[in-house]
Amino acid sequence: MSWNELVEHLKEIEILDGVGATLGWDEQTYMPKKAAGLRGAQMALLSRLAHERRTDARIGRWLEGLDTNDPVQRACARNLGRVYRREQRVPASLVDKLARARSDGFHAWIEAKGASGWQRFLPALRTLRDLTLERARAIDPHRHPYEVLLEEYDPGTTVESLRAMFARLRDGLVPLIEAIATRPQLPSIEDTVPLEAQWRLSTAVASSLGFDFDGGRLDRSEHPFSTGQGEGDVRITAHLSERDLLGGLGGTIHETGHALYEQGLPFDLAGTTVKEAASYGLHESQSRFWENYVGRSRPFAIFLARTAQEVLGAGAPAAMRDADAIFRAQNRVERSLIRTQADEVTYNLHVIVRFEIELALFEDRLALEDVPEAWNEKYQRYLGITPPDTARGALQDVHWSGGAFGYFPSYTLGNLYAASLGKTMEAQIPSLWSDAEKGDFSRPLAWLRERVHRTGHLHETPEIVKNAVGERDHVEDLLGYLWQRVGTLYGVTR
Amino acid sequence: MSWNELVEHLKEIEILDGVGATLGWDEQTYMPKKAAGLRGAQMALLSRLAHERRTDARIGRWLEGLDTNDPVQRACARNLGRVYRREQRVPASLVDKLARARSDGFHAWIEAKGASGWQRFLPALRTLRDLTLERARAIDPHRHPYEVLLEEYDPGTTVESLRAMFARLRDGLVPLIEAIATRPQLPSIEDTVPLEAQWRLSTAVASSLGFDFDGGRLDRSEHPFSTGQGEGDVRITAHLSERDLLGGLGGTIHETGHALYEQGLPFDLAGTTVKEAASYGLHESQSRFWENYVGRSRPFAIFLARTAQEVLGAGAPAAMRDADAIFRAQNRVERSLIRTQADEVTYNLHVIVRFEIELALFEDRLALEDVPEAWNEKYQRYLGITPPDTARGALQDVHWSGGAFGYFPSYTLGNLYAASLGKTMEAQIPSLWSDAEKGDFSRPLAWLRERVHRTGHLHETPEIVKNAVGERDHVEDLLGYLWQRVGTLYGVTR
Repeated sequence: MSWNELVEHLKEIEILDGVGATLGWDEQTYMPKKAAGLRGAQMALLSRLAHERRTDARIGRWLEGLDTNDPVQRACARNLGRVYRREQRVPASLVDKLARARSDGFHAWIEAKGASGWQRFLPALRTLRDLTLERARAIDPHRHPYEVLLEEYDPGTTVESLRAMFARLRDGLVPLIEAIATRPQLPSIEDTVPLEAQWRLSTAVASSLGFDFDGGRLDRSEHPFSTGQGEGDVRITAHLSERDLLGGLGGTIHETGHALYEQGLPFDLAGTTVKEAASYGLHESQSRFWENYVGRSRPFAIFLARTAQEVLGAGAPAAMRDADAIFRAQNRVERSLIRTQADEVTYNLHVIVRFEIELALFEDRLALEDVPEAWNEKYQRYLGITPPDTARGALQDVHWSGGAFGYFPSYTLGNLYAASLGKTMEAQIPSLWSDAEKGDFSRPLAWLRERVHRTGHLHETPEIVKNAVGERDHVEDLLGYLWQRVGTLYGVTR
Repeated sequence: MSWNELVEHLKEIEILDGVGATLGWDEQTYMPKKAAGLRGAQMALLSRLAHERRTDARIGRWLEGLDTNDPVQRACARNLGRVYRREQRVPASLVDKLARARSDGFHAWIEAKGASGWQRFLPALRTLRDLTLERARAIDPHRHPYEVLLEEYDPGTTVESLRAMFARLRDGLVPLIEAIATRPQLPSIEDTVPLEAQWRLSTAVASSLGFDFDGGRLDRSEHPFSTGQGEGDVRITAHLSERDLLGGLGGTIHETGHALYEQGLPFDLAGTTVKEAASYGLHESQSRFWENYVGRSRPFAIFLARTAQEVLGAGAPAAMRDADAIFRAQNRVERSLIRTQADEVTYNLHVIVRFEIELALFEDRLALEDVPEAWNEKYQRYLGITPPDTARGALQDVHWSGGAFGYFPSYTLGNLYAASLGKTMEAQIPSLWSDAEKGDFSRPLAWLRERVHRTGHLHETPEIVKNAVGERDHVEDLLGYLWQRVGTLYGVTR
């Protein structure tokens, strides 16, 4: 009986979270601007109601009563036990202090990035780092504190595995970027395309990839995002701009990848924690597989040129009729300062810089005042450029100001998993690329549904990936894929 | 202190209701169809959370502690006391039985209306009437049971006042309709206008009337509606069809009227019950004032012809360039069977038929099996037509199948109040009609804001109306207005 009670309890939390997701979607798509205050009060109430239920004292008893011979209950014991222990072990006073520090941190970051510079951010960042360390130690004093933080996003991944993978990846990417820099640059596509035409193209592509429009929507927002609100309601948004058709489309494909995962989760296991995505890294592997592995391939460029012709007709820019031009523009590599604008190859180095700095901060190997210098030095060493100011350097992202340490590795983990998923599918689905050229993506989607999506959170991510691809070297898969696809286009070899 | 606690408690209920309203809006505008089950579960949870708070035992204590020298607390004692007593006095077993009866009633009504006829609906309707009567008696055994039901929608209105007003209104409308029937029919406008152009016209008109698009939205839905979700978030929808520009526009003006009331409520009094609209009838008076009193006037037709020209340009149908053609089409009267499609004059008789039958059912003067016959007889007597079947007669509306007895009078109350508001404004705002011709509606809106909207639920509706218009005969105001405007167009005099 207690299992059923627990399931009903967790379903209620899922519903509250789903309502919050719908309101969050509305806020970024259609909400009138004067409703901002109201929406804040609504979200705060929903969070409080969900939090009360997450910390319900009965959960401890329910956890003790789980039948660990049953695979779903065993997974629930692991997933829920982790979250519940984390909530229980952090004292309320520390939660309050962290909330205040985040609010202070955000304002300090805004001012620091605006003009004041690192010194303005430093005291707030110190408080955030110290409190976050205190929190990690409260949760588990015997584990590497960074791993405790990482666990919130990527349970099952260890600091040691990350350290090793990221170092090898970095050492493999630097020579690729250096080699590319010696070659003539690939052309980009910057033709102006009306937003209405881009919108139709985005819709057609999302639909071809398998996004179920009866159980979801595509809308426009300032920043593209994907949000799973529950069974039958997974929404994505596109940010389109007239001069950046490929950028807007890439964003839509990325969000479609997230959404395909959400639409494929095992909804029959609602209320068990197994219905959820397994980790941020695995979620990101789904978006990156479709955005990069598929979306930047030559067969996809052929499909896209044909679809642009069909959807845009005479309005299609000349470059979009030429699959080779699309393929080259999709794989253009540029050394740049800003992570969010980086190409597929350099992107991972932006992440690795931050990972190395975060790790050094939590291992007490780097003083907070020295972060901008360490940052710039790493950019010079890995990417061959130095930020002219901290706004375009260590202050570029909002995440630290909210105390989100341990979050960034998910991005590169996603790329690593996506490469191994892609390599495995290439071997197991002989028609993968000929289908893609025709606009048929049903086989890779079915493959992911069976091996990744439907598994939900029954296992931890490393195990899910191993079950799907076998024992593979993710770093080698990603490096091999990038050298092969991008290196070939630039005429460089490993 | 207990006042502040109460206010915080009520604010939480308002927020939950507002979230439900946002989800309800989403359901009718953008929700993917596969999300229906999820949305049902979300709405059920929100209702339960709000219900738990509405029946919180502390409310009884808080009510006792109110300072009735303070006008807001006095109003709260009245408004909240009424709702709380109603909730307290109805036994849970009766609530359950009613919920089941509503569900059964809906299915029975669907089948009855489809083909099976009145006998199919009869047992379910009997159960609903009996349980509703039991509920009314549980709430207050000493009052007329219909007044107890009416109180839920229009507190402050008595059965006796309704009986007298509706009888006089009926006796005044029948001769007007008979006189009109002897005259040549006025032409309608049925030109095809593309939906996109209608959409722009609807938006322009809502904006001219004073709808604040920074604190609201206009979207499209199958049935037009208006929903106040909280401060800064009041949304309306339009249902447009190519062959019915004036019908779609009238719906938008109607919903804009509701929304102007919602946007003008005293939000600084959140959590006191005074921030709310005072009654369904008063709400309807706001929609009807704009839709009919203003929207079917000749000056408005002049404004509309000019606006159609500006917005639709060469695409404006010929008839829409001619203010007189618009004015005539807006005031066309037709004896018809279906309330929701009725014109302004005959509409009230549809409502009065249902009121008289409901009252007879709750005074035990009419047997349920005899309802269709009574219905048809009244339609013949008041409107001069007889429904060919019960689907277009007593079964036409869904409301009875959900046990919503006492709800319909609000519609005609709204028309009565709107007429008196209009007559008073005509006397107090000399430029009312010359402003309207120019598209300036700021004076009547300011007038309503001051006298109706900002009052919220500080007083009961009859008092709010009396404070606004003085001692007026609403029936005479409505009859005089209709004979004058519509009668003149048809060339008939009283």
